[in-house]
Amino acid sequence: MTLIALIPVLFGIAGLFAAWTVYKMILQNPAGEGKVTEIAGLIHRGAMVFMRREYTYLAVFVAVVAVLILISELGFHTMFAFLVGAFCSATAGYIGMYAATHANVRTTTAANEQGAAKALTVAFFGGSVMGLSVAAMGLFGVGLLYLLYGGDPHTAHIIHGFGMGASSVALFSRVGGGIFTKSADVGADLVGKVEAGIPEDDPRNPGVIADNVGDNVGDVAGMGSDIFESYCGAMIASIAIASTLPAAAAAALGGQAKLMFMPLALASLGIMCSIAGIYLVKMNAAKSPEKALRMGTIGATVVFILLAFGLIWFTGLAIGVYGSVVVGALGGIGIGLITEYYTGAKPVRDIAKSGETGSATVMITGLAVGMESVVVPLLIIATIILTASTMAGLYGVGIAAVGMLATVGITMAIDAYGPVADNAGGIAEMAGLGEDVREITDSLDELGNTTAAIGKGFAIGAAALAALAIISAFIAEITVNNPDFVLRVNDPQVLAGVFLGGVFPFLVSSITMRAVGSAAFDMIHEIRRQFREIPGLMEGTAEPDSNRCVDIATQAALKRMIPPGVLAVGAPVVVGFSLGATALGGMLAGALLGCVLMALMMANAGGAWDNAKKYIEKGNLGGKGSDVHAAAVVGDTVGDPFKDTSGPSMNILINVMAIVSLVIAPLLSI
Amino acid sequence: MTLIALIPVLFGIAGLFAAWTVYKMILQNPAGEGKVTEIAGLIHRGAMVFMRREYTYLAVFVAVVAVLILISELGFHTMFAFLVGAFCSATAGYIGMYAATHANVRTTTAANEQGAAKALTVAFFGGSVMGLSVAAMGLFGVGLLYLLYGGDPHTAHIIHGFGMGASSVALFSRVGGGIFTKSADVGADLVGKVEAGIPEDDPRNPGVIADNVGDNVGDVAGMGSDIFESYCGAMIASIAIASTLPAAAAAALGGQAKLMFMPLALASLGIMCSIAGIYLVKMNAAKSPEKALRMGTIGATVVFILLAFGLIWFTGLAIGVYGSVVVGALGGIGIGLITEYYTGAKPVRDIAKSGETGSATVMITGLAVGMESVVVPLLIIATIILTASTMAGLYGVGIAAVGMLATVGITMAIDAYGPVADNAGGIAEMAGLGEDVREITDSLDELGNTTAAIGKGFAIGAAALAALAIISAFIAEITVNNPDFVLRVNDPQVLAGVFLGGVFPFLVSSITMRAVGSAAFDMIHEIRRQFREIPGLMEGTAEPDSNRCVDIATQAALKRMIPPGVLAVGAPVVVGFSLGATALGGMLAGALLGCVLMALMMANAGGAWDNAKKYIEKGNLGGKGSDVHAAAVVGDTVGDPFKDTSGPSMNILINVMAIVSLVIAPLLSI
Repeated sequence: MTLIALIPVLFGIAGLFAAWTVYKMILQNPAGEGKVTEIAGLIHRGAMVFMRREYTYLAVFVAVVAVLILISELGFHTMFAFLVGAFCSATAGYIGMYAATHANVRTTTAANEQGAAKALTVAFFGGSVMGLSVAAMGLFGVGLLYLLYGGDPHTAHIIHGFGMGASSVALFSRVGGGIFTKSADVGADLVGKVEAGIPEDDPRNPGVIADNVGDNVGDVAGMGSDIFESYCGAMIASIAIASTLPAAAAAALGGQAKLMFMPLALASLGIMCSIAGIYLVKMNAAKSPEKALRMGTIGATVVFILLAFGLIWFTGLAIGVYGSVVVGALGGIGIGLITEYYTGAKPVRDIAKSGETGSATVMITGLAVGMESVVVPLLIIATIILTASTMAGLYGVGIAAVGMLATVGITMAIDAYGPVADNAGGIAEMAGLGEDVREITDSLDELGNTTAAIGKGFAIGAAALAALAIISAFIAEITVNNPDFVLRVNDPQVLAGVFLGGVFPFLVSSITMRAVGSAAFDMIHEIRRQFREIPGLMEGTAEPDSNRCVDIATQAALKRMIPPGVLAVGAPVVVGFSLGATALGGMLAGALLGCVLMALMMANAGGAWDNAKKYIEKGNLGGKGSDVHAAAVVGDTVGDPFKDTSGPSMNILINVMAIVSLVIAPLLSI
Repeated sequence: MTLIALIPVLFGIAGLFAAWTVYKMILQNPAGEGKVTEIAGLIHRGAMVFMRREYTYLAVFVAVVAVLILISELGFHTMFAFLVGAFCSATAGYIGMYAATHANVRTTTAANEQGAAKALTVAFFGGSVMGLSVAAMGLFGVGLLYLLYGGDPHTAHIIHGFGMGASSVALFSRVGGGIFTKSADVGADLVGKVEAGIPEDDPRNPGVIADNVGDNVGDVAGMGSDIFESYCGAMIASIAIASTLPAAAAAALGGQAKLMFMPLALASLGIMCSIAGIYLVKMNAAKSPEKALRMGTIGATVVFILLAFGLIWFTGLAIGVYGSVVVGALGGIGIGLITEYYTGAKPVRDIAKSGETGSATVMITGLAVGMESVVVPLLIIATIILTASTMAGLYGVGIAAVGMLATVGITMAIDAYGPVADNAGGIAEMAGLGEDVREITDSLDELGNTTAAIGKGFAIGAAALAALAIISAFIAEITVNNPDFVLRVNDPQVLAGVFLGGVFPFLVSSITMRAVGSAAFDMIHEIRRQFREIPGLMEGTAEPDSNRCVDIATQAALKRMIPPGVLAVGAPVVVGFSLGATALGGMLAGALLGCVLMALMMANAGGAWDNAKKYIEKGNLGGKGSDVHAAAVVGDTVGDPFKDTSGPSMNILINVMAIVSLVIAPLLSI
């Protein structure tokens, strides 16, 4: 067993090696010269400064929690796992963003010198480093802890600490990054585009560097840590469910040890398929970028589904386990495609058209689209739960989440490709490169928006399923110590917990929306001040003080990520120890439902508003500068915190609440 | 027993008599003359035409459902109860609206001839008829069925049919009324105020009659049927829970028969207290209108709490039952006060201030306020559940809902007073009465907005608790036939049900928001057409064709209330018979949480936007016509369907789903 258990660790190392290879391939491309590298340098340094400061805050938080874990009954080993989780998550984010801020400028230069196909490849490689490092660090970390503690079902619970570490980092990364990116975006747009009347990404605007830094810290690092956490959460929950299975149930599925190891085996398979998918994209980039990206994702998934059959058949597990993998993998694609529909097709045109009667109707239609968009994804999730559990019990639900997330290397790569392309366009604009360069980066960016929409839906579905698996593991863990523990829906403790849980998604959404609002307010004042006080700025003869803007966004993000973070980590602890595991179980159920609903609603409404604006900007319904366009801009501005701050915070919120509950489960009474 | 069981019926009849007396007192006031009565006549007839057409649709729906009940295993008696429920609900709504459309014009004339105090009394009497007829018809109807079927716990389930009848009427009344009122409001405002530049309620605007009709059909009749349904639902659920209590549990609380009868006894007490409260308002109206209304509500509640102690002590029930009554009554006031805060104090000023940076920030701040506003009410509901159930088990939760709703006569009166005062102002404006008349009606209207805010919060809290009680009754009912039925949170059927249930609040909100949007669109076109095609309309020499606008709103409302209605009634039946009671139980839990969250969020965000606009119109932040005002108008327009259509639909949606489930419970397998 021990030798086989080495495999995931080795695959993790192999994945890191692949990420390093891709990174080297990025560096082989010329970075450009003059203004281009200068701007890229500002973005890179801004992003690194933010990461370093964020990680300083994080280190304090992690240290405090580590001490608390150590002095609690959880003890040294869980603390160790927690630290490893935090380290792996932080490292994955750092690597990914480091690479992305080198890939962006090389994408610009490739677009300038070598054309669209080469630019796509470089941008995609930028995203791939993030994707591979997420998958590799996750597999390496969970694999390592499995090697140390997974052999014995009684020590397996120590691995939960890893998930908590990963989630804590993800929470701050996601919320902080989300606030940073949108405060910069909204601030730069409002003063620059609306008040000063200069184009987007104009180098005279003091906020544009911060805006471009935001794309990296929010959409690359934030998104990466979010997916990292779902990915590890799904594996950890499946291991936990397997480790607490009654002997008969475990035997019926093929044996406890194999069931515990299977999540890691599937993830190992998935990382291979992702690497193959990345290779596939590179091969086909020259023909059609869109087809190349689609072929890469779907190809990787199909190959994964085929090979997973071999793996499960070979290990002798029940066929129902395989069925769950398939259901999960297909469900993820399904949710992604629905997201694509709601942020790309008729709903977007409806929103744009409603702009004819003003911004109020744009808001109403957009909110209605967002609300409607939850329907099919929730039906898909319900279907996954029913079918997977019929085939393999609650273990099936966990393994479906693993199946959905196994090819995370390529899914995440395609997701992170978008902001790299977006940044490349920003650099081109700021450096004053030709119209044709901007056209290439715009087309890459547009493609990135579609892939990002799919990725966002996928991330929400995966987070929901991962959280559900973790909650199931929590209940199983409680039942181990209290065999007559039953979480009845009509138990008043559970009911009160459900209502309590429903509070969190709404409260955290409110806090993060306001955070963006007030941070953007600070940003607006600073940009206005610079336009007013720096002589020659508007004429282009003086340089703006970009660092000041990066600084404001950084401080706003770091200050305002704390309340949601404390709420998410603190609530399960307070409720668990005061009201007990029964109420906590209800709370998790309520929070899960609320988070999934709000995440989908906000992400899709935001995406649809964004694309409605872009649809008008292409010349429809009066085009840029028309009243309809002005109405659509209002929608887009509301959509910004929806889709990039509050919405994504929901994934992480429920996962943090769930994993903290799972970690403290052994200490709770019912 | 039988003689005592007559008491609620007699109290119901007494309540109807009181309503009739109040109605006579309204008629003693002069209706005015000339233009005033002419306009009032148009509003009255418009409202009656809508009601008649709505009830025609309803009659078809009720007949179909009645036949389905008859041919199902539920049989004749449940069908009979269903018909009585539908009849009582429809009658209460009809009486209340009939009286309101006579009180509005008399309020105008009183304001014109006798001053503010008299005007307040008349408007309040208008609301009181609605309040008393809701309480009286509810008590009479449930009391009558209790007399017929309540004596034997085995036939008690027949009474559920009454709740289903009441809910079906309420569903259509609430959704249809909500769509009517907001399509007329938005349409009249957009063309009249924004495009033509004429004041609100200007008689030249073809849409203003429809707008004023809408206040009656939406805010009086719709609200009335909504509260009616919660009121009866709470009683019916408590009776159901008591009738299915295990013998030991029933004995510990004081005996099953007494427990079953207590909801009716409390409601009988409540109607007396409401009448006393109404009297109290009348006595104090001359001093301070605001104090008078507050004294009436709080006075009635305090007296009710005191007398309830005597009642429960006298009947020998456990003191915990009394504790539950108190917790419920206080909780209702608490939720109301929180609503008042979020729609009146600092949050409103924050929203207004955010208008300085445009309509997008008004939207963001308003949505954030709405999301935050769910926190305390949900904590209150969770507290009620925990304390009431500790004191008297799940029966305590039901009886807490009864306690909250017992004084519905006065709560509803104060609620319905608002639209009567609003209408009075509209009539004064349209009839061209002096500035001083308008001032009086404006001050009454403003007061009405505050009381309506409290009433809305109260209605949501009551609906949530009533629905919770009905769901508990559903689970208890299933358990009677299947003693080993357990609704486990981690049962995949339950989990899938929870996700499925979460779909409904979002889907119905989306449908109703769009319904308002497209109905308003039709209205806008018609009003524009009349301004264009009727010569002399703008100059005031020709009359607008108001009936056409009433007609458009009526048709839009009737057509678009059907899909939500079918969804609400159909979903529990389909899921119950296909997936079984386990999944249905999960679905109800998910829908309950989602509905309560969305109801609070939308009602409070909408109210806050409305009041932010009014705050600016009072001369703050630049006042009417400023850019800040324009931004606030966008918020108010989005808030209209939020607070008056989609939000209120949530109360009824969950109650319909719950009561339909309770009715079909005996037919379901687990």
